[in-house]
Amino acid sequence: MTALIALDWGTSALRAYRLAANGTVTARRELPHGIMKLPDAPNRLMSFRLAFDLACADWLAADPACPVIASGMIGSAQGWQPAPYLPAPCDARQLAEQLTRVDVDDQRCFYIIPGVQQTNLLPEVMRGEETQVFGAITGDERLRDVQASGRKSLIALPGTHSKWVSVTQGKIDRLRTFMSGELYDVLRHHSILGLTMQPPETPDWQAFAEGIRVARQQPGNLLGSLFSVRTRLLCQQLSPQQQPDYLSGLLLGNELAIALDGISADTDITLIGSQPLCQRYQRAMAIFECRNPVYIAPGAAEQGMWQVARYASLVA
Amino acid sequence: MTALIALDWGTSALRAYRLAANGTVTARRELPHGIMKLPDAPNRLMSFRLAFDLACADWLAADPACPVIASGMIGSAQGWQPAPYLPAPCDARQLAEQLTRVDVDDQRCFYIIPGVQQTNLLPEVMRGEETQVFGAITGDERLRDVQASGRKSLIALPGTHSKWVSVTQGKIDRLRTFMSGELYDVLRHHSILGLTMQPPETPDWQAFAEGIRVARQQPGNLLGSLFSVRTRLLCQQLSPQQQPDYLSGLLLGNELAIALDGISADTDITLIGSQPLCQRYQRAMAIFECRNPVYIAPGAAEQGMWQVARYASLVA
Repeated sequence: MTALIALDWGTSALRAYRLAANGTVTARRELPHGIMKLPDAPNRLMSFRLAFDLACADWLAADPACPVIASGMIGSAQGWQPAPYLPAPCDARQLAEQLTRVDVDDQRCFYIIPGVQQTNLLPEVMRGEETQVFGAITGDERLRDVQASGRKSLIALPGTHSKWVSVTQGKIDRLRTFMSGELYDVLRHHSILGLTMQPPETPDWQAFAEGIRVARQQPGNLLGSLFSVRTRLLCQQLSPQQQPDYLSGLLLGNELAIALDGISADTDITLIGSQPLCQRYQRAMAIFECRNPVYIAPGAAEQGMWQVARYASLVA
Repeated sequence: MTALIALDWGTSALRAYRLAANGTVTARRELPHGIMKLPDAPNRLMSFRLAFDLACADWLAADPACPVIASGMIGSAQGWQPAPYLPAPCDARQLAEQLTRVDVDDQRCFYIIPGVQQTNLLPEVMRGEETQVFGAITGDERLRDVQASGRKSLIALPGTHSKWVSVTQGKIDRLRTFMSGELYDVLRHHSILGLTMQPPETPDWQAFAEGIRVARQQPGNLLGSLFSVRTRLLCQQLSPQQQPDYLSGLLLGNELAIALDGISADTDITLIGSQPLCQRYQRAMAIFECRNPVYIAPGAAEQGMWQVARYASLVA
């Protein structure tokens, strides 16, 4: 019997999980129907409904009373229904108290988990990452221990917009966003830097390390160092196959210089996300001579949704 | 009688000047035939010839012995014929000694002025800007005086790739490139930041100043502040019409933080380029509380080419 259906509904993908009463995943699906890639239908609401049905209508038909919970961009202004942002610091229980109910039709509904925001000089927002962070803390023994001890966990979620989230005593207390992934994409595909690039067969770690090294030597000089992707080709210091990883190193090196600034050496750092990208970050930190322990935790959106659903008494 | 035909031949435009024996311009033309926008022809060489003819065939037919000189990307690997880069420090006389001759056909030829490079940790290159710099020094009395006194001139050429060139005693001794203009374009047209932007009717100087202010308060944190273009919209601190100038301010502020770092207060700064863009930079420097005197000099490619042609004895 199904206890919960959990939808990790982002910009480009919709991942659906079926969980049993003990919290284990009994089925999963990945659909290419993020909120910016919905299936065709006469209007946007019908597109959302169609994606919802493709994700879980059969599971729900088999267990009509089963609750459905969702996290991610589905709660944004471009999503199905806007869900609030809770101000940091906040914990998983507070998220559970502010679920947004969406009626799919007369019979069915689901609940969207709020995002988290921070309103400093430069405001920060996230949707979905907060749930992954709480899922990782629930699911990872080491992270649980760090949190129980009162120490800070620094959790990085690399991606199009990398998020760095710091968590103390189970509360998210700071978040920062770096557009490194998107900047890499737009520079590679739409700028002069990409014109000469050739994809390497395997990542060129030497060129990557060189990019990191330049970023470390000239912290804060991203604008002034980007052009070296081109000039080092002209001066035969880089090949067209090396340009992509050199650019990646420059961007990650700049991100790390900011994100790691002022972090004490006993703060442990956890990476959540795709394995190759997390390993790239781990490698970057080693080249950066970052002396903190760095771990990779499995992506944990479904664990986070399970946790929030329990706090919200959607599951026993 | 025409003494010189000068071609300022860049990536997107081809500007042609006809100069009399006293160095004054007697005719000018602007064609949209930069090396990346050549007119259609059966092959690339014929496209170059066609653009050349459109620019100056009639002037040359009237004065067949008149020399033709060119500067800019026409001497790059993607140009008509590769011209060398001279290492900085170098002056206009040295450029004149290294012209590259291009035969247009059996009767006609022209000469390309070399670019300038710098081979430090991060190599730098330019083509065309060196000629504008020398032209400005020749044409601008104040710049001539600064150079004659032995002081340093810092000359900025804002654009897609902004160049900052320092000149002492008539020699270019340092150059730096900032991709601020191209970054603005790719972020505006190809990133999530551009999705919500609306063009303002007139520049929003308040939003621009706010971008500069953030860049000043968080020097070096470009990667971490870019996302605020989006979050400040979400938090209603910026309107869609304000986003473009806020982004422009962030980028220019980051450029200035690097370019002005360590510059002594008596170094005067000259801007060369389009009037609106130079005025934007001037405004940015004022908000930046830059205490250096900042001037705008007229674009001076044709003056620079005249100067080099004289040193090369192409003109009397």
